[in-house]
Amino acid sequence: MADQYAQSGEDARPTETPMSSAHPVDVKTPAIPAIRWAEPPEGPVLVLLDQTRLPGEETELVCTDAPALVQAIRTLAVRGAPLLGIAGAYGVALAAVRGFDVDEAAGAIAGARPTAVNLGYGVRRALTAYRSAVADGADQELAGAAALAAARALHREDAEASARMAVHGLALLDELLPGGWHRILTHCNTGALVSGGEGTAFAVALAAHRKGRLRRLWVDETRPLLQGSRLTAYEAARAGMPYTLLTDNAAGSLFAAGEVDAVLIGADRIAADGSVANKVGSYPLAVLARYHHVPFIVVAPVTTVDPETPDGAAIEVEQRGSHEVTEVTAPYVPMSGFEAGGGIAVAPLGTQAYNPAFDVTPPELVTAIVTEQGVVSPVTAGGLEELRSAPRL
Amino acid sequence: MADQYAQSGEDARPTETPMSSAHPVDVKTPAIPAIRWAEPPEGPVLVLLDQTRLPGEETELVCTDAPALVQAIRTLAVRGAPLLGIAGAYGVALAAVRGFDVDEAAGAIAGARPTAVNLGYGVRRALTAYRSAVADGADQELAGAAALAAARALHREDAEASARMAVHGLALLDELLPGGWHRILTHCNTGALVSGGEGTAFAVALAAHRKGRLRRLWVDETRPLLQGSRLTAYEAARAGMPYTLLTDNAAGSLFAAGEVDAVLIGADRIAADGSVANKVGSYPLAVLARYHHVPFIVVAPVTTVDPETPDGAAIEVEQRGSHEVTEVTAPYVPMSGFEAGGGIAVAPLGTQAYNPAFDVTPPELVTAIVTEQGVVSPVTAGGLEELRSAPRL
Repeated sequence: MADQYAQSGEDARPTETPMSSAHPVDVKTPAIPAIRWAEPPEGPVLVLLDQTRLPGEETELVCTDAPALVQAIRTLAVRGAPLLGIAGAYGVALAAVRGFDVDEAAGAIAGARPTAVNLGYGVRRALTAYRSAVADGADQELAGAAALAAARALHREDAEASARMAVHGLALLDELLPGGWHRILTHCNTGALVSGGEGTAFAVALAAHRKGRLRRLWVDETRPLLQGSRLTAYEAARAGMPYTLLTDNAAGSLFAAGEVDAVLIGADRIAADGSVANKVGSYPLAVLARYHHVPFIVVAPVTTVDPETPDGAAIEVEQRGSHEVTEVTAPYVPMSGFEAGGGIAVAPLGTQAYNPAFDVTPPELVTAIVTEQGVVSPVTAGGLEELRSAPRL
Repeated sequence: MADQYAQSGEDARPTETPMSSAHPVDVKTPAIPAIRWAEPPEGPVLVLLDQTRLPGEETELVCTDAPALVQAIRTLAVRGAPLLGIAGAYGVALAAVRGFDVDEAAGAIAGARPTAVNLGYGVRRALTAYRSAVADGADQELAGAAALAAARALHREDAEASARMAVHGLALLDELLPGGWHRILTHCNTGALVSGGEGTAFAVALAAHRKGRLRRLWVDETRPLLQGSRLTAYEAARAGMPYTLLTDNAAGSLFAAGEVDAVLIGADRIAADGSVANKVGSYPLAVLARYHHVPFIVVAPVTTVDPETPDGAAIEVEQRGSHEVTEVTAPYVPMSGFEAGGGIAVAPLGTQAYNPAFDVTPPELVTAIVTEQGVVSPVTAGGLEELRSAPRL
């Protein structure tokens, strides 16, 4: 039933289509990295790809101090758990290198999105390096260099973790689905836009594509903020992957038609028992996958496993504002989600929306959790703990 | 977990909220009927509530001839299977009464949306009445009156069917969920905007509300055309029902939290074996309902059962254009869906979307089918045929 789309998607994918929009992005040009440190003559800066402008425009945001980075985090110009950690570390280094108050900058950056665990981790890592250097008698310049080195190390480690997740994930796919030529369904955005490397779940699909084993990437649009349409489709187009977009509620038809070989998603937090908190809409996919006997695979770095959270019930799910559902916003306008208004109402005034940012999938519905340290399958508390406490490869 | 929404929904529902939009609809004023026949001094007309302008504006479209009605059907100003049948019948009567070529008008109206079965049925019913009258020697005026009488009869019958479905549906809810105080999840739009009466699934929820037994109506926004946000929320607000909107993918969280007592949906076509074609997103709800042991109830007139379609595999599912998914459109612009463009791109240019208008739920996932003739449960071919062939009540 969806074969026509496989065909038309192949024929018309954006890498082969001339661009004619008022806001063209030429996907043949080299991709702008989601984050980079630069040192022009005017002094060091942190340069971010403004994700609120995608897919229509590739615009870089140049941050010269911590307040600029805080603003970029709040407006979601930079987003995605691992990338936020890297941004936080660079932000501390920026304050140190430019001679600002480092403790004040660290506090402001860490508080920019209180629920982002990785952000605090990245900030602490650079701050610790800075303070150690100062304690060892370093001046501000040397201590700033130490903070920058810590940020670069985190950035590099994250890229390496992506690469290892891709290797482990592809091996798992080949084991579960011998013969390759996979049709993979994914949700939300888990590629280079959330990572120092090529991402988590998306990196596995990309690895399959490079090996000629990806038949199709089915991209859930991911309401309400459309990270699938705006960001994952953009990354798939950039990489020349055969992809097709769908509304989240159309995934059921694909499963019923036997058009999905595996589901690959990321994770925002994994409880000690293996319960997975991820973008809302992940849990329905897990239930559909189980009903249709399709593997449901979670790809995330081991730092996503939180031993302090015993189980799914202990995961606090962020509830977001009604306006994300009751209004539509045009792209090229920041998808801030922090203030109501600014969008165009599509529901009667006064309508309240139930708008959880995440949902929780219990471990019994998860076929495997893929990390940079290896794969846990079946998903058990013991297996996760073993992986988490193993020496880092 | 969703109790805060129940509370906030109660406090803030639009019937109790002052309107301040640039496009206010005062939900305290009497509702404009979705369709009505009027006879001003200038001659008879068919008056439609323009559904493309909801929920922001309540605007009436006045049709003085068949081409105007065809245009209204094509732009989805009038939509919904039973209502299209009524519109088709009135359209034939309008042509007859105003002295136009009745056969030509009937052909144009019936062809306005080829997949709408009810549209053809309504047109044939008025046309048959007209031709019988002519064959019996009536002049155009008398034959037009016969066509109009047929249209009015269809309109009245549909309203009566709605009322009987509501009675049967409410009795079923009380049987399945003793004690009342139901939390009902619904998808797409099934109220007075699709019917000569109060609709199908929505009419059951409305009946529960009037008896004080509706705790909450959970309204799926229903991507891509947002009939839930735009139309069902509008009807719920109008009726003063406690309702809360959600993205389609958030329904999983509600099931997991035990916040859904029953799912009530309509149907576009029911195969002889009980397979139900309905708006895309219905099937995932059926799978979630089964996984969580929640009743999944389909409400539709018996005319929806098509004995010529043996099973789900025989139901042809309309595939619609990519642009409905890759673009967002502002309200107050017709949700035509018939031409690409006009919206704002939210995905990279050239992105293809898999966009089926409907999905198919197999009978084993349907707890019951409620019709105006009674309830079939469990859903079997025999049970459906018995109901279909029984004398009309």
